[in-house]
Amino acid sequence: MTKVNIGLIGYGTVGSGVVQFLHKREKYFRDKFNLEFVLRTLCDWNIHKKDIRGLGNTNLTKRFMDVLDDKNIEVVIELIGGMHPAEEIVTTALKKGKHVITANKELIANEGKRLFQLAKAQNCQLCFESSVGAGIPIIKMITEGLAGNTYGEFYGIINGTCNFILTEMTKNHLSFSKALQLAQEKGFAESNPTLDINGMDSAHKLAILAYLTFGKFVKLSDIYTEGITHISHDDIEYAESLNLAIKLLGIAKRGEETIEARVHPTLISKDHPLASISGIYNAIYLHAKPLGDVLLSGEGAGQMAAASGVISDLVNLASRGKDSNLLCNLYSEAPHLKVRKIDQIKTKFYIRFMAVDKPGVLSKIAGILGRHGIGINSVNQRAHNPTSAVPVVMLTNYTTEKMMRLALQKIQKLSIVKSKPVAIRMEKLW
Amino acid sequence: MTKVNIGLIGYGTVGSGVVQFLHKREKYFRDKFNLEFVLRTLCDWNIHKKDIRGLGNTNLTKRFMDVLDDKNIEVVIELIGGMHPAEEIVTTALKKGKHVITANKELIANEGKRLFQLAKAQNCQLCFESSVGAGIPIIKMITEGLAGNTYGEFYGIINGTCNFILTEMTKNHLSFSKALQLAQEKGFAESNPTLDINGMDSAHKLAILAYLTFGKFVKLSDIYTEGITHISHDDIEYAESLNLAIKLLGIAKRGEETIEARVHPTLISKDHPLASISGIYNAIYLHAKPLGDVLLSGEGAGQMAAASGVISDLVNLASRGKDSNLLCNLYSEAPHLKVRKIDQIKTKFYIRFMAVDKPGVLSKIAGILGRHGIGINSVNQRAHNPTSAVPVVMLTNYTTEKMMRLALQKIQKLSIVKSKPVAIRMEKLW
Repeated sequence: MTKVNIGLIGYGTVGSGVVQFLHKREKYFRDKFNLEFVLRTLCDWNIHKKDIRGLGNTNLTKRFMDVLDDKNIEVVIELIGGMHPAEEIVTTALKKGKHVITANKELIANEGKRLFQLAKAQNCQLCFESSVGAGIPIIKMITEGLAGNTYGEFYGIINGTCNFILTEMTKNHLSFSKALQLAQEKGFAESNPTLDINGMDSAHKLAILAYLTFGKFVKLSDIYTEGITHISHDDIEYAESLNLAIKLLGIAKRGEETIEARVHPTLISKDHPLASISGIYNAIYLHAKPLGDVLLSGEGAGQMAAASGVISDLVNLASRGKDSNLLCNLYSEAPHLKVRKIDQIKTKFYIRFMAVDKPGVLSKIAGILGRHGIGINSVNQRAHNPTSAVPVVMLTNYTTEKMMRLALQKIQKLSIVKSKPVAIRMEKLW
Repeated sequence: MTKVNIGLIGYGTVGSGVVQFLHKREKYFRDKFNLEFVLRTLCDWNIHKKDIRGLGNTNLTKRFMDVLDDKNIEVVIELIGGMHPAEEIVTTALKKGKHVITANKELIANEGKRLFQLAKAQNCQLCFESSVGAGIPIIKMITEGLAGNTYGEFYGIINGTCNFILTEMTKNHLSFSKALQLAQEKGFAESNPTLDINGMDSAHKLAILAYLTFGKFVKLSDIYTEGITHISHDDIEYAESLNLAIKLLGIAKRGEETIEARVHPTLISKDHPLASISGIYNAIYLHAKPLGDVLLSGEGAGQMAAASGVISDLVNLASRGKDSNLLCNLYSEAPHLKVRKIDQIKTKFYIRFMAVDKPGVLSKIAGILGRHGIGINSVNQRAHNPTSAVPVVMLTNYTTEKMMRLALQKIQKLSIVKSKPVAIRMEKLW
């Protein structure tokens, strides 16, 4: 029986899930893994012993240094989130030779490079499965399961709130604001959902995944990030009729000398498996060489889903030998890779605008697109009404972001166009 | 730099893929993982050095004992497949204290229990990622990625040949025999495809997965196994019109005291992600507690896909410390679980038969079903022709296999029924 002394810092939603999990499955961990987890100290700024079941002899404290100074604690679990004092806690724990488990995506996205180097120098493990997709073993799959493969590109549905909202807008025809309200009622969105719906949460996770797949730490400011607040019900219905689905994707692609890293609403074929990932589910679809395309999906949010990733880290950490190398800590960086600016990136586009329903209108618009080198693959104008504007939807061929923006500015200035054009990028995933 | 001396036995499709992989990525393994893999000896009954590139100082031999007797070889990779002499090779290697990597599903399905115990007693690792779904890290996900979770049930598309055939029958309207021929032409099916299309290959993989998820070694003879040879194009078209897809699934479910383990064509909703897994792709969809539903999919066959799983095992094995525990070797068995007989298992059914197109026919058939306690959810009779038999499709409510068989025997004897009824089980996956 291997005994592991744990200090847990942060007794919020995930932290209390971890405590429950440790308590409930105590016998299971002994029987199956030959492991005895001892929660030696639990730290939270607002802790009351009577609130917590199954703590046994656990010490309670409000000072995280009580955990870090305790020489008997081998593993520190950091679940307070945010940059500070999480960064100081993780850094100090590693410096004191303790292994660290964290679910903190913001910390890993911003300071991962330094922390991985520190962990390696200290011969400690730094585990972070729950930082992306909660307990879905995305980190483990990339770092260990596909070890030996290199990666060409990946596409991730990595924010459950946005996927839930887009699913409700599609399946139950809700407006964006009604869908967001429902997500909040169901506990799938924070009372302040800004970081989810503006794409920043996805950008944090994308930065972590890009590091693991390509060996490049991409600064958050280098990730083009666009949320879902401007997606209208009309766009979802047009997409449906074109056999397309709108998903908020985190996308990264590697070229010879460059990588792309971006988060934005994306139109994909409804026949692609990612299109069927609905509700709060997360998914990652990645192209590994030589294995080929791999899809991993599951519930990417929630108390026990996140606790599951922490427990998996704990079991794995305790089962690895003392002289093990944690594969992701060993990543040889590819510093020569440059991040491409969004302006230079080529995609196909869906564009929609309201235009006067008169002969010659489409030729004017097609003319502007043509002068910017943008080919048109299809035009859809369903409604006809000679006295008012009607919606026009076009699917374009590949063009750079830059040319599309210039063309849209010109189109918007036409007197025959009565709304700001909507543009959504498309990706061909197979 | 950690140096690992390897003996590889079996230089067929997968074996030569592994040799290529080792050769091509030699620098990559050094830079990224700090590992140097030395292929010390390559064994095949029909080996010629001139056939093989990149072997350097590798010894060639036709006698596998040359590998097993070599004290410098730390890891034996067994890629000859089949039971013998694979079983003797793996057993001897473990007894001599060598780690073993194998892609041999038949061996693990039949002798896994004994081999895992032997590996544990010898403090050796026995790795088998490529035995299910080639390089898709299904084994790693279950044993390590979801460590701490328990499992309620899983559904696997675990034979690429069958999935390819069913996809071609659905998307390109091929007959079964034409689809099989195409699979053979493309190299996705063996010249003798019996083990694939009769479901036995899936049953081997199901046995391995049931062991890892439930801790129960299910004998192959206890797995109800039905292939896809009786699936007709008519059934696929009816399924499509009912928003259903036909997949050959390996299914296992755990109750309190029992488990189900079966392989058969299954109707599932087209909206479920498993329905969009097409062609040679494999997938597993499993319910983990407390994490929730998880789906993992990718290319489950092919030389480099299988080699990828072997290399992943090799990198992981070499990176783990000497005192590591391989989690799957530690599985505490659940010997009390009894395997349920197919007779007792309840599912919904799709049934189809040719019947005379006269008033009263449906009531006769419904009467027989009713007397066997089988409710009918829907009846479809598209064509009408008073002078000949027409196809009738019914979807039933839940019933035991036993009652369905009895009812179908009676229905078949009716003079108004002109064909042997087809019955396909249905599963509600969410």
